[in-house]
Amino acid sequence: MKRVITLCTDFGIADHYAGVMKGVILGINPDAVIIDITHSIPKFDVLTGALTLSSSYDYYPEGTIHIAVVDPGVGSERKPIAMEADGSYFVGPDNGLFSMIFRRSSNKRITEITNTDYMMNHVSRTFHGRDIFSPAAAHISMGVNINELGDEVSSPVTLELPEPVVLPGRVTGEIIHLDSFGNLVTNVPSKMVKSGSEVFVGELSLGAPKSSYGSVKRGELLCIVGSSGYLEISVNQGSAYEALGRELQVTIVMD
Amino acid sequence: MKRVITLCTDFGIADHYAGVMKGVILGINPDAVIIDITHSIPKFDVLTGALTLSSSYDYYPEGTIHIAVVDPGVGSERKPIAMEADGSYFVGPDNGLFSMIFRRSSNKRITEITNTDYMMNHVSRTFHGRDIFSPAAAHISMGVNINELGDEVSSPVTLELPEPVVLPGRVTGEIIHLDSFGNLVTNVPSKMVKSGSEVFVGELSLGAPKSSYGSVKRGELLCIVGSSGYLEISVNQGSAYEALGRELQVTIVMD
Amino acid sequence: MKRVITLCTDFGIADHYAGVMKGVILGINPDAVIIDITHSIPKFDVLTGALTLSSSYDYYPEGTIHIAVVDPGVGSERKPIAMEADGSYFVGPDNGLFSMIFRRSSNKRITEITNTDYMMNHVSRTFHGRDIFSPAAAHISMGVNINELGDEVSSPVTLELPEPVVLPGRVTGEIIHLDSFGNLVTNVPSKMVKSGSEVFVGELSLGAPKSSYGSVKRGELLCIVGSSGYLEISVNQGSAYEALGRELQVTIVMD
Repeated sequence: MKRVITLCTDFGIADHYAGVMKGVILGINPDAVIIDITHSIPKFDVLTGALTLSSSYDYYPEGTIHIAVVDPGVGSERKPIAMEADGSYFVGPDNGLFSMIFRRSSNKRITEITNTDYMMNHVSRTFHGRDIFSPAAAHISMGVNINELGDEVSSPVTLELPEPVVLPGRVTGEIIHLDSFGNLVTNVPSKMVKSGSEVFVGELSLGAPKSSYGSVKRGELLCIVGSSGYLEISVNQGSAYEALGRELQVTIVMD
Repeated sequence: MKRVITLCTDFGIADHYAGVMKGVILGINPDAVIIDITHSIPKFDVLTGALTLSSSYDYYPEGTIHIAVVDPGVGSERKPIAMEADGSYFVGPDNGLFSMIFRRSSNKRITEITNTDYMMNHVSRTFHGRDIFSPAAAHISMGVNINELGDEVSSPVTLELPEPVVLPGRVTGEIIHLDSFGNLVTNVPSKMVKSGSEVFVGELSLGAPKSSYGSVKRGELLCIVGSSGYLEISVNQGSAYEALGRELQVTIVMD
Repeated sequence: MKRVITLCTDFGIADHYAGVMKGVILGINPDAVIIDITHSIPKFDVLTGALTLSSSYDYYPEGTIHIAVVDPGVGSERKPIAMEADGSYFVGPDNGLFSMIFRRSSNKRITEITNTDYMMNHVSRTFHGRDIFSPAAAHISMGVNINELGDEVSSPVTLELPEPVVLPGRVTGEIIHLDSFGNLVTNVPSKMVKSGSEVFVGELSLGAPKSSYGSVKRGELLCIVGSSGYLEISVNQGSAYEALGRELQVTIVMD
């Protein structure tokens, strides 16, 4: 049955781990269309995994199944879970990886994966990506209802993202993500940035948010509403991270 | 509709950017076969992007659509374009990425992508890979003619590649690409290398081009006609870049 | 014809090499499902390639074709080969890459690829991945019998893996692989580790093998049976390689 299954892990690309997951999936559903979101989440960094997934899943067609594995607690008592949320599916550890999606979705359901019919015959204590999550996703892609995987989970683990501090005429945010271009992504959504705003990084003014990287000269700092809808600090054809580091307070001052 | 769509970008593999593009494509054409050429073009390095693409596209079946995004001018006045050239399709920014292909093709047509019917509803100023190029490629894969995307572009931006200097009995070239093995690819095509040639890197003679890496001992330098048809400087089971750097003048002396 | 073809190489992901192989495959079999195991085998490291492949192939459905290219001898007299082993197919250089699979399989056959009908028209001396191995795999995926590729190879090149030394009450092993988490994989299979065992790294006792990473505190060393069935040395949420290096003798002492 043709269905898209995506992978988002901290396994890296040098080892066989991601490749083995794909083999397991194709063994159960030969028509699965497997797509890598990334395997380069920093090791054990659940928050970056959660942010990457929450920036991606919404661009996929309805019915897509997203496997996410950043799983420092593998083999311990943390639960393996499957979630259906507004027509998309998610499979992975119950450690907060899916908390932004859970919070954002109106129609959702989570089950603990306990039904061994939908696991590998032998389940290791170190590689649930292969033994539990890939088979569960593949079976969901074949039409298995997530209710068949196990009992409902009513209180999944959720991560707290730092929220911007809003005062009259002023919003103060922080950097929550650094991308490979060196763009510094803040936690300030574009709707909080009124026209006539001036943006400060610490004491340094970057002026008003710009409409494109090319609004400043090559190598100069700017702020801009990034592609995920949050204010970002960038350098035109360069790296804001190299210029500033990432431990920054960002303040938007409005008239 | 089954069609191959390839991606060649400088987005890296750690972020969600390439994954998001794939979601957009599959949302428009669920039967697209998406293939990564690479996402590791050095950031903003349009020339390396152009060389990588021009070394790849010709091995793909007719009708393949190649998306290339190395786009320092995103959101500025540079045009988003689509090209049909000898039965292959190309989508990306008009900054020279496709200039080698344009120059090489006998039957070609370029249009500026302006028709918003074939873009995301909201087009950001920082991520045209997601908002313009992926939708355009996916719609082309569904049979949309590139004429429907916008008006014809008659003078696309072209890059000038350094050409080898040909004198009687002597050709002087330079290194235009370094691969991950440390092979140094020159701009001297194999047809300029006559039998009986002697190759010099600066003052150092490498003798005649060899027929395989194994023609010299492990760790020794050699020159050889590489897989793209250009003379390369290599080390058997080692890195010519580590041995020599890449700022080299390469001279072929013929009898 | 729908068939899975996997790729395992040392080509890296920055260059066009893997992308070109995929184009060649899709040109011969448009319905091939191409999956990357990895392209990040350390350059010329045939043993790591062999271990990665032997940890992966068994999770793929019957009939899958695995291309492996770690090929320091490309263009020399080493043979290009195709192997059928217990219903899976393998294509690559005859340099030991497939020796673990050959040793493990009960029903197998190897042929040298010499039939130019199943190669690219022009075969380079530096890129058999493109010119010989990809076309051979694609033709096999279309139903070509490996006997049609060339004559049988009776004595393929095999690698010798270091075996653990077994003495009464004691097994001594070594590290044969380091993964990207910093886990140190030994050559001691789980069946050699009796209950009541104590594991030593050099003089340092790690106690009995643990049942999960979380059995010790974050940052502490442990030993555990890893997902491939071998004893591994790990750090809970950290890197055993950073703690210990990889030049280790591992001793399991049983009562």
